[in-house]
Parts: sequence; structure tokens; C-alpha cells
Amino acid sequence: MYFKVSKKEFYNALSVAARAISTFSPLPAFSGVKIEATMDCLILTGSDSDISIQTKLKKSEHCVLEIHDMGSIVIEAKYILEIVRKIDADEIEFEMLDGSLTKISGNTAEFRINGMRASEYPAIDFSKPNECFNVSEDILKKIILQTSFATSDKETRPVLTGVNFQCKEHQLHCVATDSYRLAKKTVEIEESLNFNITIPAKSLQEVVKTLEGEGDVEIAVNDKKAQFIIHDTIVQTRLIDGVYPETSRLIPLQFDYELTIDAHDLLNAIDRASFIKNDGVSVIKFNLSEQECVLSSKSVEVGSSTEVLSSASFSGNALEISCNGRYVFDAIKALSGSLVKFSLCGEMKPFIIQSVDDDSVLQLVLPVRTYA
Amino acid sequence: MYFKVSKKEFYNALSVAARAISTFSPLPAFSGVKIEATMDCLILTGSDSDISIQTKLKKSEHCVLEIHDMGSIVIEAKYILEIVRKIDADEIEFEMLDGSLTKISGNTAEFRINGMRASEYPAIDFSKPNECFNVSEDILKKIILQTSFATSDKETRPVLTGVNFQCKEHQLHCVATDSYRLAKKTVEIEESLNFNITIPAKSLQEVVKTLEGEGDVEIAVNDKKAQFIIHDTIVQTRLIDGVYPETSRLIPLQFDYELTIDAHDLLNAIDRASFIKNDGVSVIKFNLSEQECVLSSKSVEVGSSTEVLSSASFSGNALEISCNGRYVFDAIKALSGSLVKFSLCGEMKPFIIQSVDDDSVLQLVLPVRTYA
Repeated sequence: MYFKVSKKEFYNALSVAARAISTFSPLPAFSGVKIEATMDCLILTGSDSDISIQTKLKKSEHCVLEIHDMGSIVIEAKYILEIVRKIDADEIEFEMLDGSLTKISGNTAEFRINGMRASEYPAIDFSKPNECFNVSEDILKKIILQTSFATSDKETRPVLTGVNFQCKEHQLHCVATDSYRLAKKTVEIEESLNFNITIPAKSLQEVVKTLEGEGDVEIAVNDKKAQFIIHDTIVQTRLIDGVYPETSRLIPLQFDYELTIDAHDLLNAIDRASFIKNDGVSVIKFNLSEQECVLSSKSVEVGSSTEVLSSASFSGNALEISCNGRYVFDAIKALSGSLVKFSLCGEMKPFIIQSVDDDSVLQLVLPVRTYA
Repeated sequence: MYFKVSKKEFYNALSVAARAISTFSPLPAFSGVKIEATMDCLILTGSDSDISIQTKLKKSEHCVLEIHDMGSIVIEAKYILEIVRKIDADEIEFEMLDGSLTKISGNTAEFRINGMRASEYPAIDFSKPNECFNVSEDILKKIILQTSFATSDKETRPVLTGVNFQCKEHQLHCVATDSYRLAKKTVEIEESLNFNITIPAKSLQEVVKTLEGEGDVEIAVNDKKAQFIIHDTIVQTRLIDGVYPETSRLIPLQFDYELTIDAHDLLNAIDRASFIKNDGVSVIKFNLSEQECVLSSKSVEVGSSTEVLSSASFSGNALEISCNGRYVFDAIKALSGSLVKFSLCGEMKPFIIQSVDDDSVLQLVLPVRTYA
């Protein structure tokens, strides 16, 4: 195995594959990047068994790639990234010396690193599942960022640590909930498909990092795995087993109150009060009337805050409603647009937050009871 | 107590005082900033008993300050910083309501925070010690940054966790060592003084952060404490007890070998090899001759690196010397100037690193034995 490659492009491709590698991998081989030199490209693979990333590096006008000898080797990810990042040369030479000792050199620096034989690396099946559809990078990014924050970080109900993707004909519904709040994004797709899968939020966060900023992503799923094909990279993730709860009946359809407010103003007001906590939770209270909207919070230990929300407009009878400030903050952050609308049914009923300009995404928050 | 003050200046002054506050303070009162409104200024004090910072905020053309009622209060540092930073107003009103409940308001937001009575805050003696001298901010910054990194981070010999300041007549010698390396900076001062004190490295790091970028600092010391008077701020620190070791006889005066090299090139070469570690230490080996200078490192587990130092020039017989790469890296980083000079006496003798342009500072490193 012997090749010469542009440093910058090699480093970028290694970083993509290494993203799947976790520091606490059960299998020693999984702490390495598998590097394969084929006839016309390098194939780099990283995995932690839950998520696997494979990327191809080809010769191009920006990227020198001369493969003199084909072959494959596994090199500890942290070493190869460190070497390639710090080498002071435009091109890097990579040569397997004997067995698994690998020479990596550029300019005046030369490293001889103990690798692992590629035969010790677990076989990963990158075959493409049957149910395929395309979405633009931009839409996929929104799906993930507008929902995944609402997943649960507790392992008590594993299925809630993922985002549920349910496709019926041409509609894809993406839902995340930790049972105190819920985020739902709906997009139209061209293909007519029927599936219901739950993808770990952690894997989706790696997908977002792998997006290149433009073009389409091909998504292929079956009941075992999901694949995101982003240009020359495949991000493949296992699914979460278990039936995802039926959430559509939780979302109210009729409302008695409506609050419209500047998103930026409300975010700042919640943020200002966020240090006032009870048992680690910052509870905020809205006192809403058509005359005045006031946000307040209180803690016996710390003190209290009150703020008039001057950009708010409210319709309905006077209403007092309390909730976790963090949930409202996250929900508004995930919406696009400068104006947000709260649709409410009552003091102890879940309420909905949406952007005034975009009804493809819906955030639902459960209120809390306060005794003050 | 009731005053009105510019948000930005108040926040900056609070940040300075809060720098002395440690998260794990033994005394609850020390988690707060003491705020005193006097006739013509605010006095803000923070302390963790080892280090205390007092700063004065006066009315100026940049800073509104209207003191309507004098008084004093202690407010939890993290709350007051959070409130003042996030309040969306140019001016902040600060009013003690009753006992220790304090109203802080700006624009539409109002906070009522439970403070502590100033009488519960320990009395801190900020009287000025007798031995005083002046240095420019620039020189003080160099003294600290060029020495303090070489202090020990282990509490086994407490005196080594500080920088020793020894003044004989008009010369101030500042020395730090962890017994494997040593840094020494010498500066001339106008005053004729005689003292020998050791200041905790941690306190000196807070002094550096408090420097404002220009002007002089007045330093006042006795055998109990040191004060750094930086414009309207006093940083006061306890000293470390115990006799500082006599280090001058450790520094060799005659040399048989000399290596001159571009600082930037050598830093990069050491950095590239830094991941090759044995028991967590990156040992580097110099193979020096008048024909060629080579840097190498080796670990049975990881592999090896070799690099020709093309910008090096060496005089003397051929020499092979090994040392902790981190120590050489830190030493060169602390020197100014682009060209550094190594003065050596032999394979197992301490060697000196200095900038070619500046002999006020000297870095000494002990070599290590390698068996390879």
C-alpha cells in the first residue's frame, strides 16, 4: 500500500470518517480509521457500531491522489488526525512498510506508526436499504435541528432518545418528545413511501455535521438501519427498537387564547430570568391579558424577576400559565422567523408555539403547576 | 442604598472584583461581591481569602454614576453578573429595599434579589505594605508569563507552586521551578529595595488578567502579603510560607555546545511529535552535529517520528540529548523573538534556552536518560 495525497483534502476526509468513532469504543479496532487504497480512490471508514461513516476521496482538480500500491490498514484515529493536521506540507506520502507499520511523511517530517491489519476491522454492511427518498440538505438540516433537541436524554424509555420518522405516502412526519415537550416537523416528499422508524438523536447530530451546505441527500431506510448519502459520504445508523408512542392526539386543535410576540425579545427575557431556579429548573410564569403581558419568575432562595413584554399582543380572557423556561426557550430557538405565536387552551393544558411564517413545524410544551 | 450606574462600566468593574471569587469558597459570604456606595464612588470587593480584589468605579465622561443613598450590601457574584450582563439598558438602577432584599432594574426588567448584609462579610485589610516599587504593565506581564508556567502544580513542596521575587538593591530576580525546569527573569527597578517573597502562581495569573494594557503598576510587599495597584484596582495576595530554594548555583555558566534555531520551526516540530508518549510524557531526542540536527521521538506502543531541523545551526562536537518535549515547548513559547539559542554542557547536564535578542529571561531544562 503506497499513495500520495493532498494534505488538506485527506485531513477533511479523515475528519468525516472519524466523526463516527467514540472515545469509549468496546472494540479496540473501532478506535481506528480504516484506510483502503483502491484502484481509483481512498475509502475511509469509521464506526462505533451504532453509527458508521464511510467516505470516498477521489482525484480531482483540487486534490492530488496517486495510488501506487493498493491495500488497506487501520490507524488509530487520534494519531492519524494529529499527524496529518500538523504536517507542514501540501502533499503527504503514506506507505505500509511491513505488516502494520506505516510510514507517513511530508516535507522534513517522517512518522512510523503501528497500525492494525484491516482484517481485524469488523465487516460493516454498507448495502443500501430499499426505501429511498431525496431531500435537500437545507430541509434535512431543519428537520434535525427543529426536532432533535426535544428528545429525551434519559435511557428509561430508549425510544424517546430518537426522532421518529413516519412516512405515509408523500408526507414525512418527524417527531421528538421527552414527554414534557414535543417538536414536530412535516415535509412533503416526491416519493410515495410507507415506513415508521426511530433514529437516535446522537446519529442525527453527526448527520448535520456531515452536511456540505448544498445539494440533495439521499435517505435510504429499512427496519434495521437508515443511510444518509451525502455526496461521497455514507452516514449509516442503527435504529431504536420499540414502538414510538402515538403523539398526534396530544396536539390540541382548538384554542381559546393567542399570544403573538417578537421571538428575539422573548428569548432575551427568558434568558435574563434563567438563573432564578427551583430545584435546578427555571419556571417562568406568563400573566397574559389584552392590556398587558408580564413574564415573571420566583425562587425563595434567590429572589424574583418581573418583566413587561412590550412587543406582545394577546387575545382572549386573562390567563396565568407557568412552564419550564428552558422548554419555551429551546422551542423558540428552533423556529425560524422573527414573530412567534402561542396557541393556548387553558392554565393546565399543553400549548403550541409556531412561527407566524412557517407552519411546517410545531412546538408543544406542557405547563407546570405553581403554588405562589 | 440607592444608585444609578452605566451598565457596561458596572459590569466590567463587577467582573474584575469577581475574579477573586472561587467557586468552592469555605465561607458563604465569599461567594458574593461586596458593593459599597460611598459619597463619590462605588467600591466593589471580591475575595477567596487567598486573593482579594477591590476596585473603585467613579463617575466619568464614559460612566454615569448617581449615588442617591449610600450603603453597602453583598450579592451572590454569579447572580449579579448574570443580571447586569443580560439587562437590556444603558443604565441600571440599584436599590436596597429592606434588610438585604435588593432591587436591580433596567428598561422593562426588574429583579429582586436576596443579598447578604455587608456586616456578614469578613473585614479585609487593604492597607498598603511598606516596600513599594513601580513597573510598567508590559514588564509585569512579561515577568509573570515568562516564569509562572514553570511553577509546580503539586502541593508536595508548596513553595514551588509560587514565583519567587527576590530584590537586591535595584535588581528584581523572579524565579519559578518545578525542580525539572526553571525560568528566571531579571529586571532593573528604580527603587533600592531588599526583599525575598514567593507569590502563588494562581494569584499572578489573576494579576495578568486585571492589567489594562498600559501605564504603570505599583507593587507593594511585606512579609505577609503583596499588593498590585493597577489604576483603580488593588489585587492583594497572601504569600507562600517557607524558604525558596537557592537556585542560582543550578544555572551553568560555561558551555561546550550551542544550538541556534528558528523558534517557530522548532515549536512546530515538537508539537508534531507530541502525541508520541511514554507513560504520558512526550520525550524528544536531539541528535546534534555541525552537519545535521535531527529531532526524534519514539514509543514502543505508538511508533516513532524523525525530523531534520533545517533551520538549525550547531557548534561543538556531536551531541545526543533527550528531554521532556513539553518543557522545551513551554520554555520557547515563553521567550520573545524569532531566534532561540540553546547553550549545553553535555548529555546529562541541564541546558539553557534564551532568546537571541533578549537576555533578561533564561529558561533551564533538565535532560532525561533514554534507553533506546
